[in-house]
Amino acid sequence: MPTPAPRTAKAEATRATIVAAAMRLFREGGYDATTMRAVADEAGMSLGSAYYYFASKEHLVQGFYDQLSAEHQEAVAEVLASETGFVERCSGVLLRWIDLAAPYHEFAATFFKNAADPRSPLSPFSPESQAARETSVGIQREVLAGSDLRLPAALREEMPELLWLLQMGVVLFWVYDSSEDQQRTRALVRGVVPLVDRLARLTRLPVVRGIAGDVAALVRSLRD
Amino acid sequence: MPTPAPRTAKAEATRATIVAAAMRLFREGGYDATTMRAVADEAGMSLGSAYYYFASKEHLVQGFYDQLSAEHQEAVAEVLASETGFVERCSGVLLRWIDLAAPYHEFAATFFKNAADPRSPLSPFSPESQAARETSVGIQREVLAGSDLRLPAALREEMPELLWLLQMGVVLFWVYDSSEDQQRTRALVRGVVPLVDRLARLTRLPVVRGIAGDVAALVRSLRD
Repeated sequence: MPTPAPRTAKAEATRATIVAAAMRLFREGGYDATTMRAVADEAGMSLGSAYYYFASKEHLVQGFYDQLSAEHQEAVAEVLASETGFVERCSGVLLRWIDLAAPYHEFAATFFKNAADPRSPLSPFSPESQAARETSVGIQREVLAGSDLRLPAALREEMPELLWLLQMGVVLFWVYDSSEDQQRTRALVRGVVPLVDRLARLTRLPVVRGIAGDVAALVRSLRD
Repeated sequence: MPTPAPRTAKAEATRATIVAAAMRLFREGGYDATTMRAVADEAGMSLGSAYYYFASKEHLVQGFYDQLSAEHQEAVAEVLASETGFVERCSGVLLRWIDLAAPYHEFAATFFKNAADPRSPLSPFSPESQAARETSVGIQREVLAGSDLRLPAALREEMPELLWLLQMGVVLFWVYDSSEDQQRTRALVRGVVPLVDRLARLTRLPVVRGIAGDVAALVRSLRD
């Protein structure tokens, strides 16, 4: 594997150009039909130059995942700086993801079968997708840290990952959502986040806290 | 669309033969590479005869879904006749599904990308998959009806569908499960069903009953 290209500002700008070109072609002609050569042409570079930044088509999509999670982090900065309620913070984060991803909804419907292959590096659960995943879990960590929600110790460590799993569930629903502007997914978010909030607040009750601790333990046992 | 073949015992036996042949070939050579002609040959019939029973490859897979849910219904008869605890009934149903589906795990990992396409008739959520879905929701209805679980009225109607959604979540996890004999999925079932049981019993508390009612209302609003 050749030495990866550096992460200078110029290199990042070039990466962004190549990813944007790739995403345009993926959306127009589909992922499978698009070649690295076509991507390089669209980006106005030689094939060798494109390969210098992205070793394969899959790496291009990883680049897109990284870019999307970075854009998401920027897009949620405002709501996370101004809101303290868990419901406003968490639904704000999820709704802004839906806004950001909207141009890619049709692509996602066809691309999902690539990403959903359990053995694909393009699965959001794969080792290759770790960087984008950590960015997204980090956003959820910030949702909690700046919110008014007080969680029992047993749940505090796992809660960012549980919220990331919730986000993955919303993304799964979104992929299947054929309603205009994906209104049904937005309705799902507006309906489910208050329920998560109320369930989380109920964990102050001893009887619910036991369940919360067991949920956290189950997630830990299955993850490791 | 030609008149569908009758559902006599002889016709059902022939269907089963063709589905079994198709599933053997799908597992050996993959779904995309298998042709109707190859399936007909494997089943020892002419192409025209095979088409009489199954109008396309997709209909073959629907036939497999129908067969699997019918086999599941038979396989759970014993636990549903002998157990009254919700945990034993529900986890029994899910664990027996994992047993039944085990020979198809490798096929499922590659086939999933076909079934996961939101617009595919092979999605478990599609109109075409309604018969198999209704059988599975019916099994969950029976899990509840014969169990010791008392639910508030607001939740009683939606609970079989919510349990079916849980089953779909388990199936999704199972597709991704590379552990031997899919032990991690079994651990998931053994961990999550008691939690569902405890949450369901908590809905007797007024503060939780409100949440249960909202969950049911959310599911209704998104389904219709």
